[in-house]
Amino acid sequence: MSSTIPDRSRLKRIPDRASYEPADVHAILDEAPICHVGFQVGSQPFVIPTIHARMGNEVILHGAKASRLLKHAATGAPLTIAVTLLDALVLARSVFHHSMNYRSAVIFGTGRLLEGDEKMEGMRAVSEHLLAGRWDDARGPSKKEFNATSVIAVSIDEATCKSRSGPPGDEEEDYALPVWAGLLPLQQVWGPPEADPGRHADVDLPDYLKDHA
Amino acid sequence: MSSTIPDRSRLKRIPDRASYEPADVHAILDEAPICHVGFQVGSQPFVIPTIHARMGNEVILHGAKASRLLKHAATGAPLTIAVTLLDALVLARSVFHHSMNYRSAVIFGTGRLLEGDEKMEGMRAVSEHLLAGRWDDARGPSKKEFNATSVIAVSIDEATCKSRSGPPGDEEEDYALPVWAGLLPLQQVWGPPEADPGRHADVDLPDYLKDHA
Repeated sequence: MSSTIPDRSRLKRIPDRASYEPADVHAILDEAPICHVGFQVGSQPFVIPTIHARMGNEVILHGAKASRLLKHAATGAPLTIAVTLLDALVLARSVFHHSMNYRSAVIFGTGRLLEGDEKMEGMRAVSEHLLAGRWDDARGPSKKEFNATSVIAVSIDEATCKSRSGPPGDEEEDYALPVWAGLLPLQQVWGPPEADPGRHADVDLPDYLKDHA
Repeated sequence: MSSTIPDRSRLKRIPDRASYEPADVHAILDEAPICHVGFQVGSQPFVIPTIHARMGNEVILHGAKASRLLKHAATGAPLTIAVTLLDALVLARSVFHHSMNYRSAVIFGTGRLLEGDEKMEGMRAVSEHLLAGRWDDARGPSKKEFNATSVIAVSIDEATCKSRSGPPGDEEEDYALPVWAGLLPLQQVWGPPEADPGRHADVDLPDYLKDHA
């Protein structure tokens, strides 16, 4: 851990679980389907779940132009984006040492509204983040749809990754207890695609979905 | 939607996806393994992922006494807790109508520090939330461990649930497009338990874990 890490990002608890490497932040952003965005209006904190994408060292958020989150983000006010991947429940011999295995990133930045080609690239990035290959297959945005959407790029000014992996860590004397200990893995998995019973339900499953079937 | 819903909780976008019923808020809290807590320090919003439990109409948070989140929550400052369950990726015929199926709750409240028996009940609730049956099996907290832990109860002063379910909703003219459309289900599933290779690894799997095996 470097002494150049600003106070708001520096992990105070169990700092050996921390990383400030952009590659670690990017990997967590790229794997997570959604993020949670925190912002403040008056004295009230808000936290909103939303889908996202990463373009370089920016996080892309998008949604309806009227969205409270996006209108606020466009002002350049401070934002915090949390991205959390859960890997396992850690079952120690003592209640105290129970934990989760996880990978998380907390990002501090500010937003800017994208326009024109950059806005279209942001929309494409969000679509491709959720399902690579989809953008070129589905009907693209009409001019009206494009104009009804806001796309924000949030700079990753500072970020902290925190993670835990591996078996439980118990007190030395507790290893002798006859308590089952170990990991209960937790996975987020895609199920098989379910075709819309609407018209044209006979369209073949596209190649980019076949891995999920 | 009732006109008595305060402005910070009232959904402005697609209000028919909203619920303000305590039973809906409780069900989402009870199912989600973790939540994201938002709070503000100075001009900086923070968002921290953490495990939780529900006791009545309060959300229980716990952790090390030194934790920034818990020290802040104990002051009674405004908190926002977001809980999000993802159910499916919604693949519409147009990019614009892509969405997620999800169930989410955003809760506004304030925290109070628990002490004594109430604190122990909070610790038990968090343990049982993660894995029912575990509390009575694992070694309970020593006096030192109990004292090193903070437990906070956050009142659910206001809450909004938002959800989406069902197939994609496309523009009428897009149903004729030869684009595969439907749902890609997303599930968070427990894998089989993995015993700690430490000592006493021969302890039988307890009954409350057999459903996961």
